[in-house]
Amino acid sequence: MDLVANVLLAGGASPAMIHSVAEIPDFTPKTHALYVNVGTLTPDWLPAIKMAAQVANDRNKPWVLDPVAAGASGFRLAACLELLKLRPTVVRGNGSEIMALVKGSADDNSKGADSTHESTDAVAAAKSLAQTTGCIVAVSGAVDIVTDGQRVVGARNGVAMLQKITATGCSVTALIAAFVAVGPSRPFEATVTALSVFGVAAEMGMATARGPASLRTNLIDALYGLDRASVLRHVDIRNM
Amino acid sequence: MDLVANVLLAGGASPAMIHSVAEIPDFTPKTHALYVNVGTLTPDWLPAIKMAAQVANDRNKPWVLDPVAAGASGFRLAACLELLKLRPTVVRGNGSEIMALVKGSADDNSKGADSTHESTDAVAAAKSLAQTTGCIVAVSGAVDIVTDGQRVVGARNGVAMLQKITATGCSVTALIAAFVAVGPSRPFEATVTALSVFGVAAEMGMATARGPASLRTNLIDALYGLDRASVLRHVDIRNM
Amino acid sequence: MDLVANVLLAGGASPAMIHSVAEIPDFTPKTHALYVNVGTLTPDWLPAIKMAAQVANDRNKPWVLDPVAAGASGFRLAACLELLKLRPTVVRGNGSEIMALVKGSADDNSKGADSTHESTDAVAAAKSLAQTTGCIVAVSGAVDIVTDGQRVVGARNGVAMLQKITATGCSVTALIAAFVAVGPSRPFEATVTALSVFGVAAEMGMATARGPASLRTNLIDALYGLDRASVLRHVDIRNM
Repeated sequence: MDLVANVLLAGGASPAMIHSVAEIPDFTPKTHALYVNVGTLTPDWLPAIKMAAQVANDRNKPWVLDPVAAGASGFRLAACLELLKLRPTVVRGNGSEIMALVKGSADDNSKGADSTHESTDAVAAAKSLAQTTGCIVAVSGAVDIVTDGQRVVGARNGVAMLQKITATGCSVTALIAAFVAVGPSRPFEATVTALSVFGVAAEMGMATARGPASLRTNLIDALYGLDRASVLRHVDIRNM
Repeated sequence: MDLVANVLLAGGASPAMIHSVAEIPDFTPKTHALYVNVGTLTPDWLPAIKMAAQVANDRNKPWVLDPVAAGASGFRLAACLELLKLRPTVVRGNGSEIMALVKGSADDNSKGADSTHESTDAVAAAKSLAQTTGCIVAVSGAVDIVTDGQRVVGARNGVAMLQKITATGCSVTALIAAFVAVGPSRPFEATVTALSVFGVAAEMGMATARGPASLRTNLIDALYGLDRASVLRHVDIRNM
Repeated sequence: MDLVANVLLAGGASPAMIHSVAEIPDFTPKTHALYVNVGTLTPDWLPAIKMAAQVANDRNKPWVLDPVAAGASGFRLAACLELLKLRPTVVRGNGSEIMALVKGSADDNSKGADSTHESTDAVAAAKSLAQTTGCIVAVSGAVDIVTDGQRVVGARNGVAMLQKITATGCSVTALIAAFVAVGPSRPFEATVTALSVFGVAAEMGMATARGPASLRTNLIDALYGLDRASVLRHVDIRNM
């Protein structure tokens, strides 16, 4: 939550972390987007997550799902599949997570939040998931894939060392939620842009990084200072 | 909790994070001050919070309340109002939080932990809250306000970028608890001093910051290295 | 969890944070080692912790216990003593924690996770604990002590400022778990090596640190970049 909140603040958003069914009816209607992350999921969190997704749907607010480690256990996969039925606007995972959602069974080789697949291995799975659910599906990796089931775009910014910092995947999903909050009518474009902006900030941060911890610091600083010109100079988005 | 604990350690305190009713009767009596923060509150945490406040009161130990996002929901506001009845030594919030406590109703415009009011808009509310509860009340903002219901002081150190780092408000409240632990007979002075010291450390950290993440690092480093002379050179406290 | 996960990633491991009894039967068998940390323990976490330790034992996987603040309360001490009966491969604490485990009673002077004893005061306690439990026991401090009940080794790397960063003890225990995962047949050597590597990284990080927060960043960066030659140049391990 710490990195996620700091990335959102650096990106210009105003995050609030709300967990309890006691608060969702009051607070979720005040938000511009909901972000659901199933990292460290326990059964008693699920009712609050579902209620929040339902409130978002009822109020016509976008919501974004990060199916962290979806293939790690039967419980977690079942939870993610239930959440998919509540129609998130965007789903963002790594290759292994998206493939587990499509396959519908826990992954015997799951390493938790770390992927054992390249994002490009998951293009077919991502298209299929987008088609069956109506969500925008994003797959992070060396190339970030975004699809609405028809179009497939590859966002090629970012650096490999991001995988050595915990919660960078969670954080870019949060940034997607912030961008979708600003552009709710164009979630595909918002998703591609969020992934690209995060990737550009990582590249700028990498220039003076001496390892994952200084990259983390530099990434947030770069994201905070990023302007339109820097993004346009560095961004690399291609149809696939 | 991560930033809060690191700020306390850098400030010379020895923090322990205890959540469970099973531990409070044993551990709270060993502390020099209790800090209660309602960020990410859920109903099952409330009994432990109340028990800890009661133990602190019974043992004549100071305790400090951070009513994070008090106006975000009816549940949270009710919880904060109940906690106020247990007579915290100090309450520290932003303008929106303090005004929600006085108004006694959830805020339709609440952004959660981010304030939608200036601290200086909340001076009357802070005085009123101090008078009705007997607490020292502090309101963070461009000018940090501290009042005991009669005196009103403005502590003018700090930098705007602190608002772009999650949990800086939580952390300065923790530092207030540490200062009140050292000077329990003078909570007003301890509160003003803690806010000023944190603000001076932020100013020193800002000198070489390239954004919110490096400011966070620099702030903790500066707080750790701060000496009396540096504080006296920079501190700006005025009666209001 | 944030620092622990980042230290593990920097050290080359692939961490996953799993809390729920609903996931342990599926996920724990996929791991190479289990790490149990009782910081912020609550009664409802204990069944999951015990189940995970049992699954690790059943599958012949190493598991490592960090008895954070073992002497802080009767509840916490009883929990740690129960966990010891499940035969962790390694136990790593500070002097006060290891002495509380051996004494078997809560510590009236407990400061929580901060030690009030030198590691060298706890050598006899560590040997006794290793003999009665069959675990490798490590005691962190100015000199890190490791014993299997017969041999006693002192690992002398590290810097005092680590005590001013929250969760550095938790993190080095996690690194022990990662090293034991790689060398499960030699847990004594793996434990000494993990403590030394972490200490060397801290020393390298200290060279350009300006306080605890930059040390934290530098430590992770140094750990990520560490090579065999740097370790061998700096390491200081002695029989005691």
